[in-house]
Amino acid sequence: MKSSIEPIIFKDNKLLLLDQRRLPIEENYIECLTLENGHDAIKDMVVRGAPCIGFTALYSLVLWLQDNKNSTIDDLSKACNYLSSARPTAVNLKYEVDRMFSILKKTPPSDWTQISLKIASETLEESHRINTKMGSLAVKEIQERFSGRKVRALTHCNTGTLACGSLGTALGAIELLQNENLLEHVWASETRPYLQGSRLTAYELLKNDIAHSIIVEGAVSHLMQNNLVDVIFVGADRIVANGDTANKIGTSNLSILANYYGVPMFVLAPSSSFDMSMSAGDEIELREEDEIKKYKNLQISPLKSSAYNPSFDITKGELITGIINENGISYAKDDHVNLKGLVQ
Amino acid sequence: MKSSIEPIIFKDNKLLLLDQRRLPIEENYIECLTLENGHDAIKDMVVRGAPCIGFTALYSLVLWLQDNKNSTIDDLSKACNYLSSARPTAVNLKYEVDRMFSILKKTPPSDWTQISLKIASETLEESHRINTKMGSLAVKEIQERFSGRKVRALTHCNTGTLACGSLGTALGAIELLQNENLLEHVWASETRPYLQGSRLTAYELLKNDIAHSIIVEGAVSHLMQNNLVDVIFVGADRIVANGDTANKIGTSNLSILANYYGVPMFVLAPSSSFDMSMSAGDEIELREEDEIKKYKNLQISPLKSSAYNPSFDITKGELITGIINENGISYAKDDHVNLKGLVQ
Repeated sequence: MKSSIEPIIFKDNKLLLLDQRRLPIEENYIECLTLENGHDAIKDMVVRGAPCIGFTALYSLVLWLQDNKNSTIDDLSKACNYLSSARPTAVNLKYEVDRMFSILKKTPPSDWTQISLKIASETLEESHRINTKMGSLAVKEIQERFSGRKVRALTHCNTGTLACGSLGTALGAIELLQNENLLEHVWASETRPYLQGSRLTAYELLKNDIAHSIIVEGAVSHLMQNNLVDVIFVGADRIVANGDTANKIGTSNLSILANYYGVPMFVLAPSSSFDMSMSAGDEIELREEDEIKKYKNLQISPLKSSAYNPSFDITKGELITGIINENGISYAKDDHVNLKGLVQ
Repeated sequence: MKSSIEPIIFKDNKLLLLDQRRLPIEENYIECLTLENGHDAIKDMVVRGAPCIGFTALYSLVLWLQDNKNSTIDDLSKACNYLSSARPTAVNLKYEVDRMFSILKKTPPSDWTQISLKIASETLEESHRINTKMGSLAVKEIQERFSGRKVRALTHCNTGTLACGSLGTALGAIELLQNENLLEHVWASETRPYLQGSRLTAYELLKNDIAHSIIVEGAVSHLMQNNLVDVIFVGADRIVANGDTANKIGTSNLSILANYYGVPMFVLAPSSSFDMSMSAGDEIELREEDEIKKYKNLQISPLKSSAYNPSFDITKGELITGIINENGISYAKDDHVNLKGLVQ
């Protein structure tokens, strides 16, 4: 399936990046011809979402290798370090750059350009394959659970093509439900403070002709009380051994409301987001107050008021009906005993 | 207690209204000299909050009576109708205007100016008395429940002086807790989409030197999971016989989260907000989509996306730890058997 949204295009030795800062108001591609262009695009958040940042980094190295045919491993190392510095806290960026470096290190320099391009495109394809697998598992689950009737699905934040480069995770599953004629409506939670839902998820749903309404997060109980939500799909930043899941702030709220009203909730994330050795809540990033106190340059709140802006929260595994990755589903009703099997 | 915020001032035959549309960015008073000025201030939302709109209407009639000493009951009736038309859906506006009219109808016209001024100021004073009584009951409850230790209170929307003319309801109780040295911190929920929390509640808390942080509604579970919230105080638009409560969208979410984490939640509203004959959810107002899709004139969401914007939700009485009015408290643990007694 070809998505109607292409956040990353590599064509004619050029990298084209859909400028996500301007969405949904403008659809504008930034043309990257050099490593520096790719670095700046990552730094200035032209692209966002861990997978998308990783793919952009890989293609930025391709651009550099095309321009520097006679470079040494030291030159390459410098280029990699420079690229990784674009967003120091983006784990995926460093991970992909390091992985590319370690493969090229074992490869004759004459093959670097060709191999780097192969790595970049295969990584993007692999992500698409994994997300399609997860989405298909979600579709099967919904088909069985709702006996083939169409569902009203609620989602949070943006977990679509814009974040994942090709098919998304939770939003990818929603697209597949639409393709199977199993989707009646999507409720897109606006996702304060950064509004990924009302800006980006709504944009993707519109592009894919999927019926949807944006809602404020405060409206979720009202919707469920009036029996307007059948299922919740969200992504995850990290899933640990007991199923506890770190994800965008507001996800834990949803799980408790869903539990109260008996609405099933599914988390979709590739096995690379699973960490069986850690607890989910080790590092909750606190972000800047102005994300809450301002919209763009407009002041909303008093300058002297403080704002508390945690970026993620922890959803208890016991409240997550099913955790889905490319290998299968782990259910809360089985106390997530299956979870470890999904990452082996 | 004199509040540091005065949304309505009547002085030297003039009505001064704090322009709430510009808060918290600018503190600016609009001077009303005529009935027309008062009408326009209500219509253009210089004042908001049902009680504040009612008080503004009463003082607007005083202005008209000062200017029209020889008017007839027909003239007065016309003035009242004109004033009521300023915001046709504001129940409190029509209620207060009709009440003033029916009293003046039984009064010699020569006494109208003097009596109208008395009614206006007494209505404002009575509201202050009622809210002080409710707040004191809340303070006593917190003192006993937390054995005198300071609490971290969460509140939603704006239920303070800006809405109520003098001491507020839920935010009034929070001010009284501060006065009694029983308050450690306030979490002000920003209250999407209209942001009454981050704009107005934060403004009031700052004015009253109360330590506070604005939060997005998605952060509530995270705060409670980390044991950072001791109690919730909210207001109400309508409370019915079983304790079910209509209030600003997002209130029902809070009640379910509070229930899950064992955080007590109190609703404060004067007995005039109780209706023992109705169900709470008869009329949920749907407001315009652009409240969600835009901030001021800036587009957030795609133009073609729809947004679903219910203004209120219904909180189940069984999830409200205590419902407080000027006559006492009704507890969920007693199945709110006491509720009827509070309105007699």
